[in-house]
Amino acid sequence: MISLQNDYSEGAHPRILALLTQTNLEQSAGYGEDAYCLQAASHIQQHLNAPQAAIHFVSGGTQSNTVIIKSVLRPHEAVIAAQSGHIAVHETGAIEATGHKVITMPVANSGKLTPEAVMTAVKTHTDEHMVKPRMVYISQTTEIGSVYSVAELRALRACCDDLGLYLHIDGARLGAALAANSELSLAIMAEVADVFYIGGTKNGALLGEAIVIVNPDLQADFRYGMKQHGALLAKGRILGLQFVGLFAEQVFFECAHHAHEQAMALADGLRDLGCGFLTAPQSNQIFPILPNAVISALQQKFTFYHWQDIHDSDSAVRLVTSWATEPANIKEFLRVTAELLRK
Amino acid sequence: MISLQNDYSEGAHPRILALLTQTNLEQSAGYGEDAYCLQAASHIQQHLNAPQAAIHFVSGGTQSNTVIIKSVLRPHEAVIAAQSGHIAVHETGAIEATGHKVITMPVANSGKLTPEAVMTAVKTHTDEHMVKPRMVYISQTTEIGSVYSVAELRALRACCDDLGLYLHIDGARLGAALAANSELSLAIMAEVADVFYIGGTKNGALLGEAIVIVNPDLQADFRYGMKQHGALLAKGRILGLQFVGLFAEQVFFECAHHAHEQAMALADGLRDLGCGFLTAPQSNQIFPILPNAVISALQQKFTFYHWQDIHDSDSAVRLVTSWATEPANIKEFLRVTAELLRK
Amino acid sequence: MISLQNDYSEGAHPRILALLTQTNLEQSAGYGEDAYCLQAASHIQQHLNAPQAAIHFVSGGTQSNTVIIKSVLRPHEAVIAAQSGHIAVHETGAIEATGHKVITMPVANSGKLTPEAVMTAVKTHTDEHMVKPRMVYISQTTEIGSVYSVAELRALRACCDDLGLYLHIDGARLGAALAANSELSLAIMAEVADVFYIGGTKNGALLGEAIVIVNPDLQADFRYGMKQHGALLAKGRILGLQFVGLFAEQVFFECAHHAHEQAMALADGLRDLGCGFLTAPQSNQIFPILPNAVISALQQKFTFYHWQDIHDSDSAVRLVTSWATEPANIKEFLRVTAELLRK
Amino acid sequence: MISLQNDYSEGAHPRILALLTQTNLEQSAGYGEDAYCLQAASHIQQHLNAPQAAIHFVSGGTQSNTVIIKSVLRPHEAVIAAQSGHIAVHETGAIEATGHKVITMPVANSGKLTPEAVMTAVKTHTDEHMVKPRMVYISQTTEIGSVYSVAELRALRACCDDLGLYLHIDGARLGAALAANSELSLAIMAEVADVFYIGGTKNGALLGEAIVIVNPDLQADFRYGMKQHGALLAKGRILGLQFVGLFAEQVFFECAHHAHEQAMALADGLRDLGCGFLTAPQSNQIFPILPNAVISALQQKFTFYHWQDIHDSDSAVRLVTSWATEPANIKEFLRVTAELLRK
Repeated sequence: MISLQNDYSEGAHPRILALLTQTNLEQSAGYGEDAYCLQAASHIQQHLNAPQAAIHFVSGGTQSNTVIIKSVLRPHEAVIAAQSGHIAVHETGAIEATGHKVITMPVANSGKLTPEAVMTAVKTHTDEHMVKPRMVYISQTTEIGSVYSVAELRALRACCDDLGLYLHIDGARLGAALAANSELSLAIMAEVADVFYIGGTKNGALLGEAIVIVNPDLQADFRYGMKQHGALLAKGRILGLQFVGLFAEQVFFECAHHAHEQAMALADGLRDLGCGFLTAPQSNQIFPILPNAVISALQQKFTFYHWQDIHDSDSAVRLVTSWATEPANIKEFLRVTAELLRK
Repeated sequence: MISLQNDYSEGAHPRILALLTQTNLEQSAGYGEDAYCLQAASHIQQHLNAPQAAIHFVSGGTQSNTVIIKSVLRPHEAVIAAQSGHIAVHETGAIEATGHKVITMPVANSGKLTPEAVMTAVKTHTDEHMVKPRMVYISQTTEIGSVYSVAELRALRACCDDLGLYLHIDGARLGAALAANSELSLAIMAEVADVFYIGGTKNGALLGEAIVIVNPDLQADFRYGMKQHGALLAKGRILGLQFVGLFAEQVFFECAHHAHEQAMALADGLRDLGCGFLTAPQSNQIFPILPNAVISALQQKFTFYHWQDIHDSDSAVRLVTSWATEPANIKEFLRVTAELLRK
Repeated sequence: MISLQNDYSEGAHPRILALLTQTNLEQSAGYGEDAYCLQAASHIQQHLNAPQAAIHFVSGGTQSNTVIIKSVLRPHEAVIAAQSGHIAVHETGAIEATGHKVITMPVANSGKLTPEAVMTAVKTHTDEHMVKPRMVYISQTTEIGSVYSVAELRALRACCDDLGLYLHIDGARLGAALAANSELSLAIMAEVADVFYIGGTKNGALLGEAIVIVNPDLQADFRYGMKQHGALLAKGRILGLQFVGLFAEQVFFECAHHAHEQAMALADGLRDLGCGFLTAPQSNQIFPILPNAVISALQQKFTFYHWQDIHDSDSAVRLVTSWATEPANIKEFLRVTAELLRK
Repeated sequence: MISLQNDYSEGAHPRILALLTQTNLEQSAGYGEDAYCLQAASHIQQHLNAPQAAIHFVSGGTQSNTVIIKSVLRPHEAVIAAQSGHIAVHETGAIEATGHKVITMPVANSGKLTPEAVMTAVKTHTDEHMVKPRMVYISQTTEIGSVYSVAELRALRACCDDLGLYLHIDGARLGAALAANSELSLAIMAEVADVFYIGGTKNGALLGEAIVIVNPDLQADFRYGMKQHGALLAKGRILGLQFVGLFAEQVFFECAHHAHEQAMALADGLRDLGCGFLTAPQSNQIFPILPNAVISALQQKFTFYHWQDIHDSDSAVRLVTSWATEPANIKEFLRVTAELLRK
């Protein structure tokens, strides 16, 4: 079976694994106070144009979102997210478990939260009988693979400034976004966000996300929140070291571009076969629409998610590429699909 | 500098790292539903004599304690711990952050919680104006390296049965306990505990703890609690795989015995030099008492924790050995100490 | 100014106040363990046909909902509510503050949650990456004054049974519902609900709600949850005593019928004047649609909420009656409205 | 039976009840936004010498402590309390339920927390592996009836200033403290505390506590926290109105002085009979030591708490007086005790 199911099916990029192996017997300080964590932070820093930013490493995305939101909000404050937002749907109530409501707003097909939706959320929360919106959460790329443009990000930033809101960007797939739109950069993220994280797990690392706290008001005592949430690893250096690999050696960008190219090749090939898409392919998650019979046949050889029924005979599926996707597998997928569609 | 500061200074045991490397490009299911997690659970299972036990893998100790306690207790229920217990002191209020009080009881020099202390805690919590004690937490080895004997564990179990309490054992250093006392075993732990965890981070793994839920009443929906707390890694297989290495290949026991032998060699050597100890050396953490001048001189070459002032001129220090401690370094420590004491 | 703004503008029904005065200097046990609390529970019990039910008294509605939901759910479990549900909108995230997600479902104009909506909520929460729906919350009367019929309640009960869900009914305005539909009764509530509360604050008491836990599985240690949440009043008897008044002396039903009659008189009068309504008037909250100019003029003499713009020139307002609403004020409201509409 | 068991056995002071009755049918705004709440705040304000203070009314002590502490602390911050502190023992983990650790410090016989204990708590919490002490909690009077002097309060204030801590004073029995020591005043409380509350429940009201937030940094959005915790009563005016009675008409001080005089009469009488005391009688809770046989006989006619065994034949009991304690009952208690002691 060939997996196009997600971008975390394999282990780490070989250069990352090599780094772990080379340094394995070095003795270092625990809990993220080692030299590699410092070095990784410094490499990331060079991309940010935000010398005041604080950088911390944790092991996963849910942990990132939870520690950040819990650290920033007071008990009665809430975070605004798209109805399809990861924190709203797929984190088993992690944010609510820290006491905070996630205010969900409907989004159009784009999967993107708009300034208008944010404004509506704020306007409809008028007094102390309701929670107080205080933070906006978006995912870049979104849960359906769409990418906020620089203009869209700046518009959200302006909206947050107007309304006194913080902006947090979930970058579990930030690499994919950067690969998809060359106007985007880590510096743009640091410009628009109060806090964001750079996903390593889905882009070349075994595990690990780098949290970037741009706004100095949100930096105090962050390590306390990490420790309290079980997010300070004893061997913290294994996170720092992976980010050294990702950013000192550019593995992060290489991985993301590889995944992007494979996804675009897949999308182009499917388009040539006459496929439509649920949403325009933009990044490493694409959503082609195929006849159900073709889908069933494909599932004999490939694993991927059935996403949504379109009508009786067709469905949209989700295909995901990663740093490890082999071009031969993309070709094979297209070949088999072409054959099935011909029948 | 040579570190005797803790047992998480290095990376993973080379055989563990080799496994990660060998399997790196395999594609597998995410979030702990892969074949390696299953396989690791099955290997651990063989040690337990508790076929009903459920086994889950998470990335660290604070996370283990938090997810377990949060999953077991109702909101008004509390956990009883030694005043020096890890959850009471060194987890930044992680248990309280989930809403539960940690009832702390004084312990004697042994660092061990006794049935008498547990009974006192229960007797002094009499009605609904106070929290309701519902779980006992102990660490094996304890925070000061002492080891509960089989008889002590069974006495605590009997006490918990009498009082309607669950028993949770924090096994961050469970390997060290097993190496220290040959009567102990994982089967004994499964016999006495409702739930416990087996620490990988401090005994050969890069990261990872195996949670063993022996009591079927406590097993339902545990993965929900893990996910909610950010403890389900996307690449969950890297935890499973490490425990395959630790238990299929016996690395766990080898690592623990190596650390134990180094600690005993160190203790014997210091005893021969006339040193006293704060507590009798039992496992891989030992607490020799040395003149302050000697300690300062040692710190030029070795890193370790100053533990406690004994009187004006002497202090107890903490020396910790690990699977990676080189015998040569122990000898060097003894040589330098001997030289300093002679002055 | 005459208030039709809500049903808590005045103090207590005079017979309730008389009871408080008569018994003022008696000495009694604290924290709800006095004779009046027992007596009140026994009077309520006689209406229930559920001898196993446990009854507790607390000071308000948010407190009732919070203590109940927190006591029933495990950390990863969630409660399903209408998008307009009180716990979803107007309790400042009280439920989320205890760690639980409120899953909101759209409702039609009726303001009522349907079994279909409940089923959809359950079907879309499929695994441990999402919260687990475990309780259904409805309000009787709803937030817009509509009343669940016996058939609707039984259908929700059946749906909950099928899906393994608990049913909690917020009865802040339960009196109004009973007055509106003679098929309803406290016994019907006890038949369909696992837990519900009977609102005193909005129906004749100074403050106080009676929580009825019908399902024995949910009764254990409930007073612990009350105390932890600050819901056990030192002078708990003032709650018990008021419910003695409400139920021993039938004040509860009298109050509710008075409020209902005033609301119906108001609705009939407005209908006679040609007014339409946002939703059909059913209970003590009605939502007539009036020209904005008329509304502004009415607000010189009466206080009430502007509810919703209908179109440029008209709006729906909310008019609420209570046990204390004077018929003369209803007549005056109709007289003034008639006059304004004639202009 | 005559109760000396607590200071909340009776209802409200008759003048308070009269106010409730007189104003019963007035219509007013809900949720504490009525004229009586404003008026009560203004009367309290006149005692404070702190024009910037914000004043809110809630229904009980646990609620006060919980809403205050939750509102002030960030998630990793903790509150320091005496081991015997009400929040540490008798609030069913209410503070922990909001996620915060209560750091308990041993106290001497006085029941009072000292600056030295506070300093020790701060010094032993050194980094992010432990919670961060951020607030000091004391009770005035303490749980055993002792009273902090002005000098002691100022010393704690200075200590808090040095260490960057907030000082919160639980005034459930603040009236008793003011009656016990004429140097104390509400202005002194406002001088030393960042936040405190004035207990009505135990000093003349049916229910109600006035929270005084002296420090402007702690005032923002406090009503959100109240609402979220179910502490905003719909008929909030019944709290405001009672505090109008307590402070416009001086009922608060009269009640407290009456209780104090009765306690002192009781203490003097017992001393004359040769009784010793567990702690020196200072306020409305006194702890005489009596032979067990005498205690048993007294319990035929009086209710009070057995506090502590002293030795085989004697025990300390707790006797509490209130605004409603009748002098005749004190005399009767002394008469019966004298008679029993003579036997």
